[in-house]
Amino acid sequence: MQIGLIGLGRMGGNITRRLIAKGKHNVVVYDQNPKAVSQLADDGATASASLDDLVKKLDAPRTVWVMLPSGKITEDTITALGGVLQKGDTIIDGGNTFWQDDIRRAKTLAEKGIHYVDVGTSGGVWGLERGFCMMIGGEKPIVDRLDPIFAALAPGAGNIQKTPGRDGRDPRAEQGYIHAGRNGAGHFVKMVHNGIEYGLMQAYAEGFDILKNANIEELPAEHRLDLELADIAEVWRRGSVVTSWLLDLTSTALAGNETLDAYSGFVEDSGEGRWTIDAAINESVPAEVITTALYARFRSRKEHTFAEKILSAMRHGFGGHVEPPKKS
Amino acid sequence: MQIGLIGLGRMGGNITRRLIAKGKHNVVVYDQNPKAVSQLADDGATASASLDDLVKKLDAPRTVWVMLPSGKITEDTITALGGVLQKGDTIIDGGNTFWQDDIRRAKTLAEKGIHYVDVGTSGGVWGLERGFCMMIGGEKPIVDRLDPIFAALAPGAGNIQKTPGRDGRDPRAEQGYIHAGRNGAGHFVKMVHNGIEYGLMQAYAEGFDILKNANIEELPAEHRLDLELADIAEVWRRGSVVTSWLLDLTSTALAGNETLDAYSGFVEDSGEGRWTIDAAINESVPAEVITTALYARFRSRKEHTFAEKILSAMRHGFGGHVEPPKKS
Amino acid sequence: MQIGLIGLGRMGGNITRRLIAKGKHNVVVYDQNPKAVSQLADDGATASASLDDLVKKLDAPRTVWVMLPSGKITEDTITALGGVLQKGDTIIDGGNTFWQDDIRRAKTLAEKGIHYVDVGTSGGVWGLERGFCMMIGGEKPIVDRLDPIFAALAPGAGNIQKTPGRDGRDPRAEQGYIHAGRNGAGHFVKMVHNGIEYGLMQAYAEGFDILKNANIEELPAEHRLDLELADIAEVWRRGSVVTSWLLDLTSTALAGNETLDAYSGFVEDSGEGRWTIDAAINESVPAEVITTALYARFRSRKEHTFAEKILSAMRHGFGGHVEPPKKS
Amino acid sequence: MQIGLIGLGRMGGNITRRLIAKGKHNVVVYDQNPKAVSQLADDGATASASLDDLVKKLDAPRTVWVMLPSGKITEDTITALGGVLQKGDTIIDGGNTFWQDDIRRAKTLAEKGIHYVDVGTSGGVWGLERGFCMMIGGEKPIVDRLDPIFAALAPGAGNIQKTPGRDGRDPRAEQGYIHAGRNGAGHFVKMVHNGIEYGLMQAYAEGFDILKNANIEELPAEHRLDLELADIAEVWRRGSVVTSWLLDLTSTALAGNETLDAYSGFVEDSGEGRWTIDAAINESVPAEVITTALYARFRSRKEHTFAEKILSAMRHGFGGHVEPPKKS
Repeated sequence: MQIGLIGLGRMGGNITRRLIAKGKHNVVVYDQNPKAVSQLADDGATASASLDDLVKKLDAPRTVWVMLPSGKITEDTITALGGVLQKGDTIIDGGNTFWQDDIRRAKTLAEKGIHYVDVGTSGGVWGLERGFCMMIGGEKPIVDRLDPIFAALAPGAGNIQKTPGRDGRDPRAEQGYIHAGRNGAGHFVKMVHNGIEYGLMQAYAEGFDILKNANIEELPAEHRLDLELADIAEVWRRGSVVTSWLLDLTSTALAGNETLDAYSGFVEDSGEGRWTIDAAINESVPAEVITTALYARFRSRKEHTFAEKILSAMRHGFGGHVEPPKKS
Repeated sequence: MQIGLIGLGRMGGNITRRLIAKGKHNVVVYDQNPKAVSQLADDGATASASLDDLVKKLDAPRTVWVMLPSGKITEDTITALGGVLQKGDTIIDGGNTFWQDDIRRAKTLAEKGIHYVDVGTSGGVWGLERGFCMMIGGEKPIVDRLDPIFAALAPGAGNIQKTPGRDGRDPRAEQGYIHAGRNGAGHFVKMVHNGIEYGLMQAYAEGFDILKNANIEELPAEHRLDLELADIAEVWRRGSVVTSWLLDLTSTALAGNETLDAYSGFVEDSGEGRWTIDAAINESVPAEVITTALYARFRSRKEHTFAEKILSAMRHGFGGHVEPPKKS
Repeated sequence: MQIGLIGLGRMGGNITRRLIAKGKHNVVVYDQNPKAVSQLADDGATASASLDDLVKKLDAPRTVWVMLPSGKITEDTITALGGVLQKGDTIIDGGNTFWQDDIRRAKTLAEKGIHYVDVGTSGGVWGLERGFCMMIGGEKPIVDRLDPIFAALAPGAGNIQKTPGRDGRDPRAEQGYIHAGRNGAGHFVKMVHNGIEYGLMQAYAEGFDILKNANIEELPAEHRLDLELADIAEVWRRGSVVTSWLLDLTSTALAGNETLDAYSGFVEDSGEGRWTIDAAINESVPAEVITTALYARFRSRKEHTFAEKILSAMRHGFGGHVEPPKKS
Repeated sequence: MQIGLIGLGRMGGNITRRLIAKGKHNVVVYDQNPKAVSQLADDGATASASLDDLVKKLDAPRTVWVMLPSGKITEDTITALGGVLQKGDTIIDGGNTFWQDDIRRAKTLAEKGIHYVDVGTSGGVWGLERGFCMMIGGEKPIVDRLDPIFAALAPGAGNIQKTPGRDGRDPRAEQGYIHAGRNGAGHFVKMVHNGIEYGLMQAYAEGFDILKNANIEELPAEHRLDLELADIAEVWRRGSVVTSWLLDLTSTALAGNETLDAYSGFVEDSGEGRWTIDAAINESVPAEVITTALYARFRSRKEHTFAEKILSAMRHGFGGHVEPPKKS
């Protein structure tokens, strides 16, 4: 199939390369950075010099995949595309867009007869090699028509063991992509995926923190344990209940440097964790672990919170406690 | 009544002074620091030069109130007293002892006919003025016999509004002390009191943190609010639902310095919070808020956790994310 | 002063009565329920038969206080008022409105020269007697002009101890009301107040749960404690660190019935808790305790969560565990 | 090698069968239930009629693996073995023992010259097929001598991808077992493993709960999403960041029945989660997610908490709120 691709960063570049590598797809690419365009042209893509140029190089009905950082730049690009595309064309947003924005955009574009597809894409920097796990929201006929694109990007069944009892269910799931539902559903499912990811990461992080601190001086000598974290991460990959890809990554990191000195401990978060909590609250679902994981990241980025100063002020007030200066 | 008092720090000193001020009690005092003893002798206490000397200066049946930091020094002192006191005498532990230690000690001392009373004491540095709120564990006849001591130390009914519907219930509660139950009950109730205290403090702290950060640059200009925290704390003291003594203290602190610059944000915890969680877990009671409040203090005392480095290592592993250096 | 009041429920009725009781204010009232209007007319208010009638009975510049349930009915009423009021008039929203709605409304009404004031009001059913604690958002000249209204409604200084060090700060705070800032600030501060309230309540709730369960059969006999919750709540009112108005209410409830049999345990939440978390997340402030308190209420309203079924399904999957049927 | 095995339940039986299947080991078995003994004798084990009989059938230095439910029965069995084994013999506790009990037992048995090895074993009912992931605590020479046993039980490297950068590290980790450290270390590491497991499970559980509730009537119609949970679980197994064995099990469960009707939602916990929190608190490590996951299980087993009744009582007290009856 023919497809346009806007945004040739890490993700957009790998998507283009995987589509080309699968041998059947013609990818017309555009990026604000001409160097990114020429590099992908070298890899077999068709270069374009502008958004208009990209649209001109596509045959109707056109499909344009937007793979840009979520927020203003994605919004502006989709608005611009809405102005140049025609009835019957399709815009795919493969970024990390807030799902309610998908619903709004799909409605606006539908007035012009332009289709909209939201694709939540997991796989990170490993997608080129492993394939991309995709959760897709949009109209059924459109999603069906684009199936060759999704099938090429998806990991495929590989050597992952088949889940028993799935006969009669959607076979695409076993290939690594699903049509999750109407517009918004793709990014909604991806959002919850990321919320879960936060919780999983925090669970491992706390566990390794407890292992790491099992030998601190404050503990009674007979209870102190000196543990090899890299070996523990590795052994858990082998037949334990906590086996996972995140654990594989942890084992690799700890094998490289058991103290993780290279990391400051400052941890970013992206919008998905926040939106997951917003969804949980709107649904009245208690999402303690996911929320806690987000808050741990907030806290990681502060020297101290004002909340902590309030605590010290109260302790001084009722008990005359003078808190010691901060330890390093 | 006559009573011995060991440990003349902030709490022990104020207890002695309040017993003397109430005019009816003869307090024989001892402390490792002779200066503390002579100061209280100046205030009307009877000095003693050693634990043995203190015991000699008391008439049988003797009562000795131990008011020392919880842990080894309290344990050793009570063991020593167990060796010199006699059948019918009573040891009071007014410190912050783990309640299961009370149960053990009471059993050991009972073999010698020595009584044991555990008193959880709240009121901090304000006790001399406000009186001490006491939760008492021990045998009924002993607690009853010592009632004049407790009545003198307690705040009394004062001008606090009477709770409707308490007719027929223990009138001591309205004076500020209760016989909570058998040995251990005094410190158990005090422990839960402190657990609640952690949760209350954290609730206020988070709230003021949200108020404080309502004006940060990251927010949209039309939503930024510049709030006067000192005035907010003060107004909430006046007819709001969150009125409390802890809020009074917060209002005082913020009136003095709205930024609380004097506090590093490093917050200690004592054993009671930890033991409260131990109790909750043994009872299978979910104690989320109290636990969270304790963990917030743990976190406040660290530059970064190892957990946070694990998170960054994973993020680097799956997404190639390089966390920015720590902000101040 | 003259003021219109729309919405004569528990809160609106009490506000009207307190304004009249203070002797200086003329309150023109309206409610969809004519009986509510006539009752307040009996108490000294001026009845009106419709929103238009109410407006006609007021002299310019008019002030109308809307005291309705938050949401559609408040929004519709304010929109309607915006259509009939004139330049220089003022609308007060005293309900529990989302603060960003205040900002939007103020902007819209300003185009017509109509002023808007948002008032967060705490005090619940006790406001008539105790006075209302008010947090006010709006333009300074308007808030200043309405001062007689706020001063009448506020609790006043009463016999609450003065906070040291407040000289030079806004004296209104000590009377129980503040001008918190521009539009939205009133409801924002009230919102955080309620978030704190959730956290405080949950802290007490967990503590009493731990006390209640200190005697369960699963515990070792030597550690079981049989505690009188009503007495404990009462004694903590007397000189302890956890003294508060919420504790006063708890003591009253437990004095009436120590098992609280009348309550199902199903706990509602209103919007403020949810919005507080939204604000915390937008500010990147970890608000663990407040969030946890909200989630505990969500959970209280469910028989079981789907999350719990997922847990059981996993446990069955990896360990062959068959969960026992639900205990009552 | 020759080994005795006491406790022929699910785990003990599978361990015996795997040792026999590997062809080199002679397993002398005992269980209180003679039928369990005879079944394993049929499978190639050597039956014994009593603990004494089992010991007699082993040659010095003897090794006895105890695989019983943690608690009294394990403790009693190890005490009894301590009475009949001889200097140079070894007791292995493969159950879920509290790690501090290992330290105590090892010390006591060392006085008689008997060695003690604690083995944390993960793998559940799948161990016979997948192999057992083992974390071992004890003296190096003893753990080394028993290596053939551990190597036989472990999963082996299989087709799991090798972690880069592990050259020079303990190769046993890649086979699925480690010598974690001195006595107690085996069960300590297994305990933290289970703590992490609780957190991981809760993260998935919350995520699927949010997906499940994305279609509730309380949501605005334009935001409601009807999602296929079984397909979502399946697609996440394919190249996503949240891929794990626990997700594999979830996908299987949802493929069987998307509503999980067979599960009440009542979720048990075993000691390891509780002990993990105890360790975290002793180390001052904030372990929010793991703790929250444990508390969610506590809550799942209650109709309502007393805490919730306290909340309702307060709400009634300050706002006159009457909570509605419980929804199903």
